[in-house]
Amino acid sequence: MSLKSWLPLLEWGASYQRQQLGADLLAACIVTVMLIPQSLAYALLAGLPPQVGLYASIFPLIAYSVLGSSSTLSVGPVAVISLMSAVAIDQLGLPSVEEKVAAAMVLSVLSGLMLLGMGCLRLGMLANFLSHPVISGFVTASAILIALSQLPYFLGVQIPADSAPTMLLALIDSLDSVNLWSLSIGSACVLVLLWIRSYLKRLLRAAGMAERGADFLTKAGPVLAVIVSTWASGHWGLAEQGVQIVGAIPAGLPGFSLPPLDLSLWRELLVSALLISIVGFVESVSVAETLAARRHQRIRPNQELLGLGAANLASGFGGGYPVTGGFSRSVVNFEAGAQTPAAGAYTAVGILAVTWFLTPLLYHLPKATLAATILLAVLALIDIKAIRRTYRYSRSDFAAMLVTIVLTLLMGVETGIAAGVILSVGLFIARTSTPHMAVVGRVEGTEHFRNIERHAVETVPQILTLRVDESLYFANVRYLEDRIEQLLQQQPDIRHLILMCPAVNQIDSSGLEALEGLNHRLSAQGIRLHLSEIKGPVMDRLQRSQFLQTLSGQVFRSQYEAWQTLKAGPGVEESGV
Amino acid sequence: MSLKSWLPLLEWGASYQRQQLGADLLAACIVTVMLIPQSLAYALLAGLPPQVGLYASIFPLIAYSVLGSSSTLSVGPVAVISLMSAVAIDQLGLPSVEEKVAAAMVLSVLSGLMLLGMGCLRLGMLANFLSHPVISGFVTASAILIALSQLPYFLGVQIPADSAPTMLLALIDSLDSVNLWSLSIGSACVLVLLWIRSYLKRLLRAAGMAERGADFLTKAGPVLAVIVSTWASGHWGLAEQGVQIVGAIPAGLPGFSLPPLDLSLWRELLVSALLISIVGFVESVSVAETLAARRHQRIRPNQELLGLGAANLASGFGGGYPVTGGFSRSVVNFEAGAQTPAAGAYTAVGILAVTWFLTPLLYHLPKATLAATILLAVLALIDIKAIRRTYRYSRSDFAAMLVTIVLTLLMGVETGIAAGVILSVGLFIARTSTPHMAVVGRVEGTEHFRNIERHAVETVPQILTLRVDESLYFANVRYLEDRIEQLLQQQPDIRHLILMCPAVNQIDSSGLEALEGLNHRLSAQGIRLHLSEIKGPVMDRLQRSQFLQTLSGQVFRSQYEAWQTLKAGPGVEESGV
Repeated sequence: MSLKSWLPLLEWGASYQRQQLGADLLAACIVTVMLIPQSLAYALLAGLPPQVGLYASIFPLIAYSVLGSSSTLSVGPVAVISLMSAVAIDQLGLPSVEEKVAAAMVLSVLSGLMLLGMGCLRLGMLANFLSHPVISGFVTASAILIALSQLPYFLGVQIPADSAPTMLLALIDSLDSVNLWSLSIGSACVLVLLWIRSYLKRLLRAAGMAERGADFLTKAGPVLAVIVSTWASGHWGLAEQGVQIVGAIPAGLPGFSLPPLDLSLWRELLVSALLISIVGFVESVSVAETLAARRHQRIRPNQELLGLGAANLASGFGGGYPVTGGFSRSVVNFEAGAQTPAAGAYTAVGILAVTWFLTPLLYHLPKATLAATILLAVLALIDIKAIRRTYRYSRSDFAAMLVTIVLTLLMGVETGIAAGVILSVGLFIARTSTPHMAVVGRVEGTEHFRNIERHAVETVPQILTLRVDESLYFANVRYLEDRIEQLLQQQPDIRHLILMCPAVNQIDSSGLEALEGLNHRLSAQGIRLHLSEIKGPVMDRLQRSQFLQTLSGQVFRSQYEAWQTLKAGPGVEESGV
Repeated sequence: MSLKSWLPLLEWGASYQRQQLGADLLAACIVTVMLIPQSLAYALLAGLPPQVGLYASIFPLIAYSVLGSSSTLSVGPVAVISLMSAVAIDQLGLPSVEEKVAAAMVLSVLSGLMLLGMGCLRLGMLANFLSHPVISGFVTASAILIALSQLPYFLGVQIPADSAPTMLLALIDSLDSVNLWSLSIGSACVLVLLWIRSYLKRLLRAAGMAERGADFLTKAGPVLAVIVSTWASGHWGLAEQGVQIVGAIPAGLPGFSLPPLDLSLWRELLVSALLISIVGFVESVSVAETLAARRHQRIRPNQELLGLGAANLASGFGGGYPVTGGFSRSVVNFEAGAQTPAAGAYTAVGILAVTWFLTPLLYHLPKATLAATILLAVLALIDIKAIRRTYRYSRSDFAAMLVTIVLTLLMGVETGIAAGVILSVGLFIARTSTPHMAVVGRVEGTEHFRNIERHAVETVPQILTLRVDESLYFANVRYLEDRIEQLLQQQPDIRHLILMCPAVNQIDSSGLEALEGLNHRLSAQGIRLHLSEIKGPVMDRLQRSQFLQTLSGQVFRSQYEAWQTLKAGPGVEESGV
């Protein structure tokens, strides 16, 4: 392991060129414009003051640009992780905003330490435990929860992030105190943003604007909404009309700060931090891999753990909250032509400038505007098509997806994602626990052996060949034993049982024990057990045990060899098709 | 589903014969003699009054004989389940014995309902989630915990069932209050029982006694110890010397009783009941299957769920505590020649008689005697050989076993078994998440394709064939994508990628999505994706999706056909070996 492989910065930094600088700067500008309203809005979603979102968009980006392996990933606050943070912090029941911010920092540091730890242990494969249907179901349900949590800002009321039914009830309860000003601003923003997204680019292009410029203006839609609504809010003094506004944001950086060393607080946030780490990592890696593949680059999942771990650590010590690589911003970063992780660092500089100079201008920004940008961002995450496709293709994957959606909506994000993981692993084990097995016979005149139920093949009553189409492991040995017992009862003449193993990719201890027991029992009945077509690695492992010495029969390289040898042996009749 | 398949009693009862009656009665006698001290001792282990053990040996046996599918399983109190019950009840911190008995009944009813529920849902395959190494590790650690929990009776002190270190410390603390009488009785019993087990049968045979008689007397060893030590305890008034004795046991049956309907109590016992149900079921089914296979009979796991469920329900309503099929007693029942589940019912009658007439005689029975019988019973469960064998054969199975042992000893039975299950499933997923894949070429002059790294085979720079030796599912699609990306970077000339799938037993939604993404990306690079040797069921499922319509290449039945077709196509050079 060279230093370069741990610090990708050394790799790409050494050959950094002017052309890359230009591309990275342009991408950084576009992403910064996109990130300003997003960072404020997601902090709001997490139940934190808006500046926390800005802080989470500065140091983490710089940390990731040093350690991350993706050249286009845009790290920072994202919707789903903000929701999970809100839930984790809400559970603590803290009375003051300061304590909530401190808890968010702890959550971020914990998550950073976990990700770094996993990275050092090369546990990037942990992401594999989340199946696509579960992720997709979880994201869809989270998007619904997020959308619900934003509705109160439209109505000018406030309810905590909770399960969907609780939020709905709280929302209905608060309908009598609706603030029409908030509702007007929020609705106007949604309509304008929808219009911008659907028509503006086409209109600008038709008016003769260059592709790139039209694209930039379309992406800047939310910033436009922020500017206009902030001006309107300040001009007409809407805060006095009950419109919730962002208010005073301290200018400048928070300075390096230590999260509180309250052990019970750390312990209480442990599980939440773990779930946030895993979900954040999976989301980020999926995005990074998708984008890297489009440019025929590769990312290294274990390096990503380090990059994201450092980003979260930086976020925690820099007054921020948990971050990860987000989908929409990364796509924008990619399409804007970002060449290296430096683009992220330039974005950080952009946000830093905003934090230093522009926060006073955001005083009158209505929260309803931010809610509108969140609403539009998360509605894109609800993937009805994926749900339908999964339903058509696999009922058991669909079941896992549905349970994840329902539990996330009813019991919250943490229960939902945990249940989804358990269910998809459980269903996989359940499926492989009743593997396909076929009694096979010889296709006459050839060396091929095929399922006797599908083909006209040659068999001998004294020889039974069973092809096992799955690895032998603890979950399916019982089924194998049962199947063999059944076959032996049906065919009492059998003297030789051959297990044909071309698709057996591993045999674990339980599988070995089952084979030993089978060998023992068959011996007592005067039946010899043989193996054929065992794969190399499986054979290597079997040789470490006593099994091959006690095996009553032989191990054959090919099924044809087994057939020829045993058919010519004593006590075996002529064959019949 | 006929009534007969739900009530095995109707099946074997219809053809019950005098010869079977004789065999069943003899087996019942032997098992009854064995069960008397065991039922008292295991109740003690569970922290319950001795009569609860007797009650748990009456109704459950009758219920199982109606619904159970094994002809030799001996249901009743067993060591590991008694320990788990002790832990579950201890957690509640109940002050009085009456409340503990009530909690035990609730635990039993809950477990019975769960088992019945799983039986109705045909969830017998749930037992498959426990791998042999985890079961073996769990039983070994439980045996150590049980042995530790019995030592206080030798010393004449009492400590609650807890983690191994806590019990050891409590034991050391109590060393200054050792009762020498208890110690003498306990040690004498252990020595005598060891002697009986090792030498008595040989001695009796040498003295000319018949095999069967000698066997019976050897099995009756614990009863002998009970009789002699009870007599000694009564004769010398050892209770006044501080020896703990069993004391008054109410004669006769407890009568049908309802467990308390305290909802919070039921909820608190839910998880424990689930773990007890699963462990009990797995233990019982393993024993039943092993014994059934020796007689070429079969048991039905789903029917066993019903049988054990009914047994636990009966135990709960009849004043008992959780029961299951025990290993040692079932083996004795089998070897004594039990022919049908009726043997269990006759055993119940035997225990009923004991409960009715003999309980006054047990007044002076020292608890140290019972502890000695438990100690000898559980030491046989510590399987050092299995641990060594697993270590040699598979490091990852050994890791799962070790974690189960250590966590069971340090954190208790519930944490231990839960961690074991999670770990063995996790390790299996981890192993299948980096499946074996091989780039293959054609063995010249044949239709065979082999790994290019191991064989001299024919390849073409424009065609890449990758054989995937594992099902494609959520845990390994990332690895597949990564591997393909890597191969394409190494071989820029590739125009055709063939995935050869003879060992792909399933493709789940995540696998399908990965293939779709791959097809899309390869198309953009001008590479066509082909599939060969897809299995029938996998193909059937793929046809439910849009994938085959969008596939840039073809689906070939055989790899040879793919090779011939693509090699003859445009843009493919001459082949080279």
